[in-house]
Amino acid sequence: MAYLNENYLKLQAGYLFPEIARRVREFCDANPEAAKKLIRCGIGDVTEPLPRSAVEAMRCAVDELGRRETFRGYGPEQGYEFLRSTIAQLDYRDRKIDIEDDEIFVSDGSKCDCGYILDILGDQNKVAITDPVYPVYVDTNVMVGHTGVSKKDGSYEGIVYLPCTAENNFVPEPPKEHVDLVYLCFPNNPTGAVASREQLARWVKYAREHEALLLFDAAYEAYISQPDIPHSIFEIPGARECALELRSFSKNGGFTGVRCGFTVMPKSLLARTEDGRRLPLHPLWHRRWSTKANSVSYPVQRGAEALYSSEGRKQVSALIEHYIGNAAILREACAKIDMKAYGGVNGPYIWVKTPDGLSSWQMFDRMLRDLNVVITPGSGFGAQGEGYFRISAFNTRANAEEVARRLQTFA
Amino acid sequence: MAYLNENYLKLQAGYLFPEIARRVREFCDANPEAAKKLIRCGIGDVTEPLPRSAVEAMRCAVDELGRRETFRGYGPEQGYEFLRSTIAQLDYRDRKIDIEDDEIFVSDGSKCDCGYILDILGDQNKVAITDPVYPVYVDTNVMVGHTGVSKKDGSYEGIVYLPCTAENNFVPEPPKEHVDLVYLCFPNNPTGAVASREQLARWVKYAREHEALLLFDAAYEAYISQPDIPHSIFEIPGARECALELRSFSKNGGFTGVRCGFTVMPKSLLARTEDGRRLPLHPLWHRRWSTKANSVSYPVQRGAEALYSSEGRKQVSALIEHYIGNAAILREACAKIDMKAYGGVNGPYIWVKTPDGLSSWQMFDRMLRDLNVVITPGSGFGAQGEGYFRISAFNTRANAEEVARRLQTFA
Repeated sequence: MAYLNENYLKLQAGYLFPEIARRVREFCDANPEAAKKLIRCGIGDVTEPLPRSAVEAMRCAVDELGRRETFRGYGPEQGYEFLRSTIAQLDYRDRKIDIEDDEIFVSDGSKCDCGYILDILGDQNKVAITDPVYPVYVDTNVMVGHTGVSKKDGSYEGIVYLPCTAENNFVPEPPKEHVDLVYLCFPNNPTGAVASREQLARWVKYAREHEALLLFDAAYEAYISQPDIPHSIFEIPGARECALELRSFSKNGGFTGVRCGFTVMPKSLLARTEDGRRLPLHPLWHRRWSTKANSVSYPVQRGAEALYSSEGRKQVSALIEHYIGNAAILREACAKIDMKAYGGVNGPYIWVKTPDGLSSWQMFDRMLRDLNVVITPGSGFGAQGEGYFRISAFNTRANAEEVARRLQTFA
Repeated sequence: MAYLNENYLKLQAGYLFPEIARRVREFCDANPEAAKKLIRCGIGDVTEPLPRSAVEAMRCAVDELGRRETFRGYGPEQGYEFLRSTIAQLDYRDRKIDIEDDEIFVSDGSKCDCGYILDILGDQNKVAITDPVYPVYVDTNVMVGHTGVSKKDGSYEGIVYLPCTAENNFVPEPPKEHVDLVYLCFPNNPTGAVASREQLARWVKYAREHEALLLFDAAYEAYISQPDIPHSIFEIPGARECALELRSFSKNGGFTGVRCGFTVMPKSLLARTEDGRRLPLHPLWHRRWSTKANSVSYPVQRGAEALYSSEGRKQVSALIEHYIGNAAILREACAKIDMKAYGGVNGPYIWVKTPDGLSSWQMFDRMLRDLNVVITPGSGFGAQGEGYFRISAFNTRANAEEVARRLQTFA
């Protein structure tokens, strides 16, 4: 009989967001009146329409596919040159970061890339992950067998957790011990924290000393408002030899349902074999895409390209301004009722300490029942998230204001 | 230092189609005049515009994303209900095949699914693969470490190869030995062969006796013209307990660049743990999608749905008729010059014996140089493909006719 991958059996029941969806559904079924007033600030999903430039580019691309003269079939597996070069130029070279076009790999989203990247890495790697954290980093490592079983608090044996707490302002220092692979995400999901240039430089130094690989998730870089905060790990000298970067169009262009992102894989990034050879990862990543995919839908790639046009950039800026405006409203609402809130300045998430020693899920249930507002329980992001909850600023302005009002009634 | 996945180092240089692209590029650079006359019958990529119904549905969906009232963000990770239910109803239940909506998992293409499916299977499985074969089945197994090193003829240690030859009409019988996982593809890429109901029934019998899992790739089912040939493995009684099926919109709806396909994962399909428990694969597959993806672009899913409308089905039929008409022309052209040709009746590929004992790559180079026609060398599909080449019928009618003419000058 065929064997299954038993690592899946180690996974905690239910990925976080489906579990939230289940509780919300149950509540709504039992309380149809309250359900009408429900406001969702749980999953970090955008609410505003796609930028006009992306809509037009996608329509135009769809039309091209409908005409014989302009029809296209399979595209290059790593993404169309028009998109790879636009990204490399505008996101990197124009900002004095040395990235070549063919170091950009277009994908169907950062969430997907988080899993894909493990395809080309060895199972021997010692993995460090921040806590709290985007659960996908952990779960994809569990799935490929990089961990032992789970413990009571939801953590897994074999992972080196890097606590992100109010004490370290949610930015961990490199560990004392050796690790091979480190997941870093700034601006951070879920805490909204950002890392300074000096903090990232210490991570690059650590990675180079330990020959570790930094997997830098910059999905929220567009939300950085403070001028001195790096948008890319590659702003740090030496990062080309120790880091790869994930980016997404989900949260800047509103592409959560359109699906597009990319990985930056420098050719100078090496990894080792069991017998000590050092080989570049770029050819493996290239091969992974050639063999396992046919890149991303052509209209989607045209839509992503359009976000870089001069009109597109203005429209993206307006979206960011909208969401970060919501974040400010929600932060202030928390402050007024003396709830300690973090983030929401350089990122679309507000990370809030639960009042009265409530657990994260208790707070979730209270917010749902009393305020009819869906938030994300902090413990869903890791053991260190217990006692916190996340409010997403992805919403209409009216909803953000209404949530702010309802928060004032929290008792 | 981070370890890389050394299994990648076992892969033969270059995935087949990039290697063909390289040779064609070199030829064209050296022969700019001949390059102008080049006709590509290599990679199985469609040439005709997207069906009108898909174009309209995609445009409409893009517009929806551009308006606040109709905007959608993240969709269900396993695909939208509107598409899953349409597929289950029209491709299966309407044909008296018992498949539930939530046994359909929408993906960004069958090629991708070939790799994804290994995520949930154990590394202990003994894998059987037909020879010749779509290289992705083999390479994805190499990548996850299911094989030893490669041998001189391109085959890998550890895989059980099932020879498909003129003697067995390119449909292999189940092996004498035990295997856990079998890849079957009918209508076949590259040979164009189809399996009869009786032949598939013998495979299902084998799979049930050996508790093996059949991975049935039906990407080309729309090309079946003979009424008695099964379109789905689930037409065979008992298959729900031993098979999953891959389908694609690439070759019926012309979605090679749009990217959409699906897997049928019956809830009744079990696999085993090391300690002998038998568990359904469906929850693992569901979890894989929840954790590692956000499904397929919304406009793409609407485009796929539109292929099932009454207009869409007519348009798809017209496309199939066009390509299968090309296949007939190419088959006849081969027959006229006494080249032994197979397939092209229930599938878009013609599988041709090379004349004069030429090797597959010799034939590739001769066709490129003398006829300025790109074909696919049979040996690229496996050791048993040596001495054959594949002509793809995916082309304009004018090109198919021109290739047929040029073939008459082959000397």
